[in-house]
Amino acid sequence: MSPPLADLSAPPAIRPSLAARLAARSGALTGSTAGLALGHAQANLAVLPAVYAADFLRFCQANPKPCPLLGVSEVGAWTIPSLGDDLDLRSDIPGYRIWRDGELVAEVDDASAFWRDDLVAFAIGCSYSFEEGLIAEDIPIRHIEEDVRVPMYRTSIDCTPAGVFSGRMVVSMRPLRPPHAIRAVQISSRYPAVHGAPVHLGLPHLIGIADLARPDYGDPVTVKDDEIPVFWACGVTPQSVIASARPSFAITHKPGTMLVTDRRNSDYAVI
Amino acid sequence: MSPPLADLSAPPAIRPSLAARLAARSGALTGSTAGLALGHAQANLAVLPAVYAADFLRFCQANPKPCPLLGVSEVGAWTIPSLGDDLDLRSDIPGYRIWRDGELVAEVDDASAFWRDDLVAFAIGCSYSFEEGLIAEDIPIRHIEEDVRVPMYRTSIDCTPAGVFSGRMVVSMRPLRPPHAIRAVQISSRYPAVHGAPVHLGLPHLIGIADLARPDYGDPVTVKDDEIPVFWACGVTPQSVIASARPSFAITHKPGTMLVTDRRNSDYAVI
Repeated sequence: MSPPLADLSAPPAIRPSLAARLAARSGALTGSTAGLALGHAQANLAVLPAVYAADFLRFCQANPKPCPLLGVSEVGAWTIPSLGDDLDLRSDIPGYRIWRDGELVAEVDDASAFWRDDLVAFAIGCSYSFEEGLIAEDIPIRHIEEDVRVPMYRTSIDCTPAGVFSGRMVVSMRPLRPPHAIRAVQISSRYPAVHGAPVHLGLPHLIGIADLARPDYGDPVTVKDDEIPVFWACGVTPQSVIASARPSFAITHKPGTMLVTDRRNSDYAVI
Repeated sequence: MSPPLADLSAPPAIRPSLAARLAARSGALTGSTAGLALGHAQANLAVLPAVYAADFLRFCQANPKPCPLLGVSEVGAWTIPSLGDDLDLRSDIPGYRIWRDGELVAEVDDASAFWRDDLVAFAIGCSYSFEEGLIAEDIPIRHIEEDVRVPMYRTSIDCTPAGVFSGRMVVSMRPLRPPHAIRAVQISSRYPAVHGAPVHLGLPHLIGIADLARPDYGDPVTVKDDEIPVFWACGVTPQSVIASARPSFAITHKPGTMLVTDRRNSDYAVI
């Protein structure tokens, strides 16, 4: 006689992406979302008054590598149904930044008190998605090994301007041995919706980075003698652009604490 | 009334790949085949006595990046039907090298006098195929710009040995600006049957290359300050391996003068 099958009368386990959102919503989760709900895409958040929405949409359309749009809310809505059931953009991210006139004025765990009827929310792809593809092929990711935030740099690469939005691209950097760098190009090329292939590698000064040890965001990591720095367009670019466009109001996620969506990373693979 | 159509009674133009082969066969073409019959795959040639065939096939199978097999002849045959109609491996390549016991003993324009009933011919993919993909996207190829042979280097990368065949991988090098290097990885990844993606980039000393200005085969090219060297596995590897395996007899093509096949480069694109 066969062993008994699993108990089918038990309630289905909660989806891990929703579990992460509920943990943030309840205040139990306030730190990094790295490694949570593996397999599910995470997203950068940018929230702007509707008066800026058309310009920002055009900016994202014109700059798909730093600003790959995964979803956009209706005006005044605090959810994006295509990215998850039971998703509350006001509280499902562990940390938020509140901006007024381009100045960071507050960091909060719950943005509900700041939400307004005229806001539009933009969810932008995150490098966690392609990092999962690298990890799956045993390509070491230094900032994970060293348990710090990925180093990010403001570059000399101009984004294509759109309306009030313009500025330089922010990139994240991962040091890789050359064969891994080649493989990483192949792997991340499969994910154009989550930054896609690197934008640069090997010669940081060509994109205005003078010192890898001094990132503009995140933390420095070790670059070994047998490695080259590989640079990807980064979803922090919108925060840099918002800081210079100085819209009257904005909400963004706090870097490293992302929106965990119900979408699978594999949904975004083109081949 | 419509203008007259083209004269359909004219004989069809000869296929440009066959035209190149016939020019070599007649002795009219003795130099490089670079740029001939664009769109058609060209091939490296290695011809060995049948006693070595199983080992060499295993060597190619185990080392697909330097030795991507496009076709193998029957024993004693001097054609590979899948690669072209009216194809004579004894004379359709502009130049041949004759080897005895691993020593280069002759360079000839026609190998017919050396052909034997016990030979097996191996046609191996050539970088001209993926270079066409780079050129199509306006990625400059330095050795073409400077009108010299591509620089090639013996590396410290061991091929996987098979029977009597073993040795180090030979690579070709193209200096590229970093964004072009990334695009070149993407483009050449589409062509695994013609060397595929690069094997290395950026740090030549890691693969045993001390001085880019002193290639082991071909000619040196300029590497500019804003470029990194990108290395692809090279179809000259079998010649290096044959030189060290010292088979009793071998015929190869003379580097730069290739077999022009009827197959389209696009036949070898996987996506």
